[in-house]
Amino acid sequence: MALNIEVELTKAPKQKPDVSRVGFGTVFTDHMFMLDYEEGRGWHSPRVVPYQSISMDPAAKVFHYGQTVFEGLKAYRTADGRILVFRPDQNFKRLNHSNERMSIPHLDVELALEGLKKLVQTDRDWVPETEGTSLYIRPFIIATEPVLGVAASKRYIFMIIMSPVGAYYAEGIRPVKIHVESEFVRAVPGGTGSAKTAGNYAASLKAQEEAALEGYSQVLWLDGVHKKYVEEVGSMNVFFKVNGKVITPALNGSILKGITRDSMIQLLQSWGVPVEERPVSIEELYEAHRAGTLEEAFGTGTAAVISPVGELNWRGEKLIINGGETGELSAKLYETLTGIQSGKLEDKLGWMVQV
Amino acid sequence: MALNIEVELTKAPKQKPDVSRVGFGTVFTDHMFMLDYEEGRGWHSPRVVPYQSISMDPAAKVFHYGQTVFEGLKAYRTADGRILVFRPDQNFKRLNHSNERMSIPHLDVELALEGLKKLVQTDRDWVPETEGTSLYIRPFIIATEPVLGVAASKRYIFMIIMSPVGAYYAEGIRPVKIHVESEFVRAVPGGTGSAKTAGNYAASLKAQEEAALEGYSQVLWLDGVHKKYVEEVGSMNVFFKVNGKVITPALNGSILKGITRDSMIQLLQSWGVPVEERPVSIEELYEAHRAGTLEEAFGTGTAAVISPVGELNWRGEKLIINGGETGELSAKLYETLTGIQSGKLEDKLGWMVQV
Ligand SMILES: Cc1ncc(COP(=O)(O)O)c(C=O)c1O
Ligand SMILES: Cc1ncc(COP(=O)(O)O)c(C=O)c1O
Repeated sequence: MALNIEVELTKAPKQKPDVSRVGFGTVFTDHMFMLDYEEGRGWHSPRVVPYQSISMDPAAKVFHYGQTVFEGLKAYRTADGRILVFRPDQNFKRLNHSNERMSIPHLDVELALEGLKKLVQTDRDWVPETEGTSLYIRPFIIATEPVLGVAASKRYIFMIIMSPVGAYYAEGIRPVKIHVESEFVRAVPGGTGSAKTAGNYAASLKAQEEAALEGYSQVLWLDGVHKKYVEEVGSMNVFFKVNGKVITPALNGSILKGITRDSMIQLLQSWGVPVEERPVSIEELYEAHRAGTLEEAFGTGTAAVISPVGELNWRGEKLIINGGETGELSAKLYETLTGIQSGKLEDKLGWMVQV
Repeated sequence: MALNIEVELTKAPKQKPDVSRVGFGTVFTDHMFMLDYEEGRGWHSPRVVPYQSISMDPAAKVFHYGQTVFEGLKAYRTADGRILVFRPDQNFKRLNHSNERMSIPHLDVELALEGLKKLVQTDRDWVPETEGTSLYIRPFIIATEPVLGVAASKRYIFMIIMSPVGAYYAEGIRPVKIHVESEFVRAVPGGTGSAKTAGNYAASLKAQEEAALEGYSQVLWLDGVHKKYVEEVGSMNVFFKVNGKVITPALNGSILKGITRDSMIQLLQSWGVPVEERPVSIEELYEAHRAGTLEEAFGTGTAAVISPVGELNWRGEKLIINGGETGELSAKLYETLTGIQSGKLEDKLGWMVQV
């Protein structure tokens, strides 16, 4: 496919915000990337255009049948002014995995990467420079065919929008309190849990709201069949340090294959820390806690990188982890990965792509 | 809430199609209904406007997190020219049930009904008159707040669009062949199966496609936990006649509470036919078939009213029901309900609302 990306620059550049004062994903940059799909013609017309509203037929399938997938990744500005994007190839690979599940046509990864680079270059002044800040990048595909039959769309738009975001931990990394969810279910084998698709997030809102009412910042999802095995925490993968070993739920089909998760496993292995990917039951964690061997727990994801878990509440039984403090290994993983991302530490694993 | 619905008429009325030649939900009427929601202000500005594209921020939550619900119902033209809508109050009641699950604010059912009536009145010439045809009505709500945080939206649009549809059975009611799905899962207790929300339909596309490749027109969904109990068939509820009794899966939280389902149960009970709502295992059906007592099977839903099942295929084991023909009870239910809907039979149960 010819990588001929048209660029139309905005005539009305926006004022850049003070990222320490804006909420996550509320302010968008001056431009966006677009690519159209039509059955018979394939993906076509890659272009960078001014950020703007799009015109949608009210019958567009995305509104009715949720045929849509998305990704989330970040660009960082280094101290010497370079712009680095973290493992973007992995995001587009995962997007195609999601496409497969949602009956959306595959995307050319090279073209998507070119589009991403062109967009970041165009809006390079939007990558904030303060420590801990970044440019959040949201690629997504929506089904646009205006037909109400329940069947895959014959038309799609792939877009990338970007939003400058402040430091996740403005006052230092901080453990969160987690509600273990026993009523609502996020995903089930044979469902869409391993795809990054809208419906999974819609399904999670209610549980999140109810947990928030009780003072918990996220929910820990149990598997939908036995309500026994730990799956994810909020929109993050989850890890536990038990007796010197690190364990994390295996990719069983209902868990998202997190890119931060994969990176953490690689880092841990490179340090000689044993990592087990396997089913982890919630009882196992409570038992380890009773035995004094549950040393750390943390979620991993693009937004926070690491979110230490200070408390779990399962059916009213509270469990305080590491005295509610950030564990040593969590802190080390956080420092290392954010160090690589911001260009402060050497990128030995070849994760960063310079734009 | 003041029921002051503004009406802006189109200046460019469209040509009405020959409904026997258009696909389901491909052609829309001249107008649509809209109602906006903003946190703090509630639902406001009900209006009928020309059918048109809407302007959406690419960051609108519906595109990313699928926060959306919908309904489907029909208006019919009687032989003497009246227009009747089938049980619209039930659809808006169910919409609020879906809203509850998806963290969307409740809608005033009276206002929604007024909007629906005003819209149908405005486009009354679009209700087709040939036997078996109808005007399909699609109310839906989408989350429009342009913020990427995973949390309920603070802004929504409620819309109603309408599409004239041809007779479902142009050549007489016809049994379909159904693939019993053993890999993919539509819904699970604690999930969103009892809500009419986009993600459920997105999740179903893949299985549908694979079944179609093998010559099956729909899938029969088994429960997501045991893969043992029958849930729905395609986008329909399902009934079986076994040894003179009618059985249908109970509303267990992962099944949609179909309005056709409820109507069929009421009709059957009024005829003195015993109806059991309870878990129905797929083995039970295969056993009944072996014993010669599986007399009929059919799906129920707004689109087809009744869709008789002529064949089930579970893991390669085919089961032919009633010699692959439409059963007597299925035919009687179909004739009765479509008779009531079209105004040919007396509406003893008070289901039809005249517009
Ligand atoms: C459901 C879910 N799990 C896990 C993750 C973590 O994935 P990643 O590390 O690629 O950001 C995400 C995305 O952030 C997610 O949405
Ligand atoms: C999943 C699902 N089940 C069942 C039904 C049947 O519901 P109703 O009879 O209200 O049309 C529908 C909608 O048509 C549906 O989408």
